[in-house]
Amino acid sequence: MKHTITTVAFDADDTLWANEDLFVATQARYTALLAPYRHDWDAQELHATEQRNLAYFGYGIKGFTLSMIETAIQISDGAVTGHEIAQIIDLAREMVHAPLTLLPHVADIIPTLAQTHRLMLITKGDLFDQEAKIARSGLADYFRHIEVVSEKNSSTYARILRRHDINPSEFVMIGNSLRSDILPVVALGAHAIHVPYHLTWQHEHVDVPADARTWREMADITAVANWLAQNC
Amino acid sequence: MKHTITTVAFDADDTLWANEDLFVATQARYTALLAPYRHDWDAQELHATEQRNLAYFGYGIKGFTLSMIETAIQISDGAVTGHEIAQIIDLAREMVHAPLTLLPHVADIIPTLAQTHRLMLITKGDLFDQEAKIARSGLADYFRHIEVVSEKNSSTYARILRRHDINPSEFVMIGNSLRSDILPVVALGAHAIHVPYHLTWQHEHVDVPADARTWREMADITAVANWLAQNC
Repeated sequence: MKHTITTVAFDADDTLWANEDLFVATQARYTALLAPYRHDWDAQELHATEQRNLAYFGYGIKGFTLSMIETAIQISDGAVTGHEIAQIIDLAREMVHAPLTLLPHVADIIPTLAQTHRLMLITKGDLFDQEAKIARSGLADYFRHIEVVSEKNSSTYARILRRHDINPSEFVMIGNSLRSDILPVVALGAHAIHVPYHLTWQHEHVDVPADARTWREMADITAVANWLAQNC
Repeated sequence: MKHTITTVAFDADDTLWANEDLFVATQARYTALLAPYRHDWDAQELHATEQRNLAYFGYGIKGFTLSMIETAIQISDGAVTGHEIAQIIDLAREMVHAPLTLLPHVADIIPTLAQTHRLMLITKGDLFDQEAKIARSGLADYFRHIEVVSEKNSSTYARILRRHDINPSEFVMIGNSLRSDILPVVALGAHAIHVPYHLTWQHEHVDVPADARTWREMADITAVANWLAQNC
């Protein structure tokens, strides 16, 4: 069956370019930095601080950094030094300016898709971080609309569809997070394609029974482009 | 002369609600916290750290907090304790959830203006911080469009006008910052009304010769509403 999809929306982090890898690598350096204090600390302590701080600091590098500093103080019982905390802030600056790596085939497929569909970028997180990555991606001009939002739930997507006068049946969202890119979109009656990434931030994990999976799952963006070419 | 102004755009911080006061009050508590280390430190040291960090962290509470932590490490020669840094992070959480105070007459005038004009809110800063304040203001529903941007320059305003298909001659921007709300708007040939606030963040200071001031200056939002009623 042919679909009349007019708008193809992409998530950004871990859908168009690698992102979680940078957090994982930074956390490894952070763990090494804290080794003098406790060898056996559990990454769950950092994750718990992050979760607690989401309501205060939201997503992104700066909130993550404040959580790293706070966790360092906790697990060292306050003994972490000013010099070590300065190194954590250095890690944050390195993250902000880290090179951006597009995922395979993205650099070819996005410009091609832009010739046949209205493309949107819908990304969650810190405005400053996301704008910097979008600029460095070199892809900004291919997206008719770019939306940086603080949370991706059904009301966020409903607002975006309304603002651009898009019927849910004409809209497909492509992303790596079931929680943020897929479930809230299918809840609106729109299309969604899940393209898993090899790393998923714990916060984005959800369990969905197999028989409730009403969306498509594809291995990579090449499969997405082929499906759009054949079906839309 | 009557103007055909269709769209009245407001800045948010220190135009619709108090904001800089919170940063000033937090900085006073921060200064007290650091008193054991240096009595004579100059607020310019914090300002210099903030300026340096803008390219990494952007505007907002989280970037300000990372700059406070970094400056504390510098001026204490690394002697600041984990406990004291934890207190700085507590200051950040207090800022995020601080009560929002609308400026005088804003609560009456915005709903009234919304009946006769298309209202927009254009605010610079951290997406998470700004969305939280907009929600707490109770004013969100009166604005047809809300734009949170990372920087307010002429290309930002040009993009917003293009996106909403607004001619510069039909647009007036109202705000407290010459640098962010007024100069980039008049550069596009649009209207701007400067409503100064009693505090201005040093970063927003600009000097403009008196004879180059082509915008209106008004004392408060009541004067703005009267001018709009009589002239537009």
